[in-house]
Amino acid sequence: MDGIKPYVIGIDLGGTNTVFGIVDSRGNVLADDSIPTRQFSNPEAFVEGISAAIRALANREVGLDQIRGIGLGAPNGNYYQGTVENPPNLPWTGIIPLAQMMTDALGIPTAITNDANAAAMGEMIYGVARGMKNFIVITLGTGLGSGIVINGQMVYGHDGFAGELGHVRFIHDETGRSCGCGRKGCLEAYCSATGVARTAREIVTTTDRPTLLRNIDPDQITALDVSLAAGKGDAVAKEIFEFTGHMLGEACADFAAFSSPEAFIFFGGLTKAGDLLMKPIIEGYEQNSLNILRGKPKFLISALMGANAAVLGASAMGWEL
Amino acid sequence: MDGIKPYVIGIDLGGTNTVFGIVDSRGNVLADDSIPTRQFSNPEAFVEGISAAIRALANREVGLDQIRGIGLGAPNGNYYQGTVENPPNLPWTGIIPLAQMMTDALGIPTAITNDANAAAMGEMIYGVARGMKNFIVITLGTGLGSGIVINGQMVYGHDGFAGELGHVRFIHDETGRSCGCGRKGCLEAYCSATGVARTAREIVTTTDRPTLLRNIDPDQITALDVSLAAGKGDAVAKEIFEFTGHMLGEACADFAAFSSPEAFIFFGGLTKAGDLLMKPIIEGYEQNSLNILRGKPKFLISALMGANAAVLGASAMGWEL
Repeated sequence: MDGIKPYVIGIDLGGTNTVFGIVDSRGNVLADDSIPTRQFSNPEAFVEGISAAIRALANREVGLDQIRGIGLGAPNGNYYQGTVENPPNLPWTGIIPLAQMMTDALGIPTAITNDANAAAMGEMIYGVARGMKNFIVITLGTGLGSGIVINGQMVYGHDGFAGELGHVRFIHDETGRSCGCGRKGCLEAYCSATGVARTAREIVTTTDRPTLLRNIDPDQITALDVSLAAGKGDAVAKEIFEFTGHMLGEACADFAAFSSPEAFIFFGGLTKAGDLLMKPIIEGYEQNSLNILRGKPKFLISALMGANAAVLGASAMGWEL
Repeated sequence: MDGIKPYVIGIDLGGTNTVFGIVDSRGNVLADDSIPTRQFSNPEAFVEGISAAIRALANREVGLDQIRGIGLGAPNGNYYQGTVENPPNLPWTGIIPLAQMMTDALGIPTAITNDANAAAMGEMIYGVARGMKNFIVITLGTGLGSGIVINGQMVYGHDGFAGELGHVRFIHDETGRSCGCGRKGCLEAYCSATGVARTAREIVTTTDRPTLLRNIDPDQITALDVSLAAGKGDAVAKEIFEFTGHMLGEACADFAAFSSPEAFIFFGGLTKAGDLLMKPIIEGYEQNSLNILRGKPKFLISALMGANAAVLGASAMGWEL
């Protein structure tokens, strides 16, 4: 059996958790697990932690020697270089040669891309973008990530850093919200789980409007709290989703002027809000798009389950190693 | 000699003038001419006018029967459909099957693309983008057009309408300037010849700052007037170019977050201002770009002469017909 390794591992390195799974050639995730990203104060500790966790899972399920390659999706992951460079939502800075570090730790070849690019690959191979040549995946997690496909190809750009739509600035003056990237007015500062929580906090602390969200310490409000309150009919919570979705749709009108995609596909925790989020996205797009682009793109929610799209997408790189 | 037709014609349909030329296989423009676009109140009259002008030029130079194909660059030109759809800077509306109309009028096969896409093709084949796989051409004429190349391919999008960067909105609220497209805050309303003239008009009519531009009827001020005044050291005129360039550079920071190009290439009348425009573009980019994209793209002025880039670019399509 030597030489035939029937599995790959996909890793989705997120700002909060790192999820990983063992994937077979048909795209089944045989087993997965996760570790909390923030508990590791430097990349070396993280590589030690994730390697131990992968070794444990792989040996329990199929044997580590059955793993052919590892694909890792990470914030600011550079496909060309195998590096993670100054990741905006992680506690680590500098240019981290994570692909080589993983290869050294586990003895398995590892490739890296942006976490959102990985999600886009997952959608293209296993998801709602099958057969599409031009689409944009927008991931709504701790931050706002994006994976762009044009003419059937992943857009990496000249240096591997294309597709940072969360850091397209929606507000170009000093009134824009501070973003984790050090600038102001980025889309991610509004349209992300963190952005939703900030909007909620702003309303609770600067107005006296009645809302269920007042039952929570403002500093502790999360997007999930807003979603739960909206589900109970809370007007303020519903308005927060309208504000978020509308801005996101308006931004999609700008993105459509760039690449005129067949579809925008939304992925990540926030999409669990369903129509609460999707309706204002479509409305924001239709009210703000250029006439020749109006009514054209589809607005879809990822059909892949939970974190698996990113894990599957990342894992796809593992077959090429 | 039958069957071998050694020339193509490139047409650049602009909001003000339509320039066309006879091009040989080495990319030499043998002869060119132009007609004023706005004198034709409907597409039929335009096709009649341009056909007569092409026939006259071609018969004088090489013979109309020596023309193999025609490539036409036009606002909202659709490569896939051969149509011009609701062009924003022309007096005509609706979906105009211009490729077929030209073919019928002259008996020569005709292909259409966006005028800015044609300029990008010209840069890729004959200009400063030779050898580049990822770049963005921004044309600064009556409007702001763009041609985007990713992975060595022209970006047409799902429906042929990608690359409308002039209609990415820079200001997303009601304070944005009205744009010819019917919306507010589009980049084109500021960063174009028309936009420069509007900025000048705003300053002259709403402030009492001393400037040479006051010697001109505010409604008659053009970008050329501003350029000439700046050349004479007029502080207000120089500031107008700084404002325009800075905003354009800031917008380029957003575009880089999308496709991370190797270069932005500027084309059209406004670029004659040289450093007056280019310096603030670079400054606007560097001050506003995401850290991982800072200092990376080149900012270049088209090396192709005058309108010939668009004519050459459009003509390139003629060989494929």
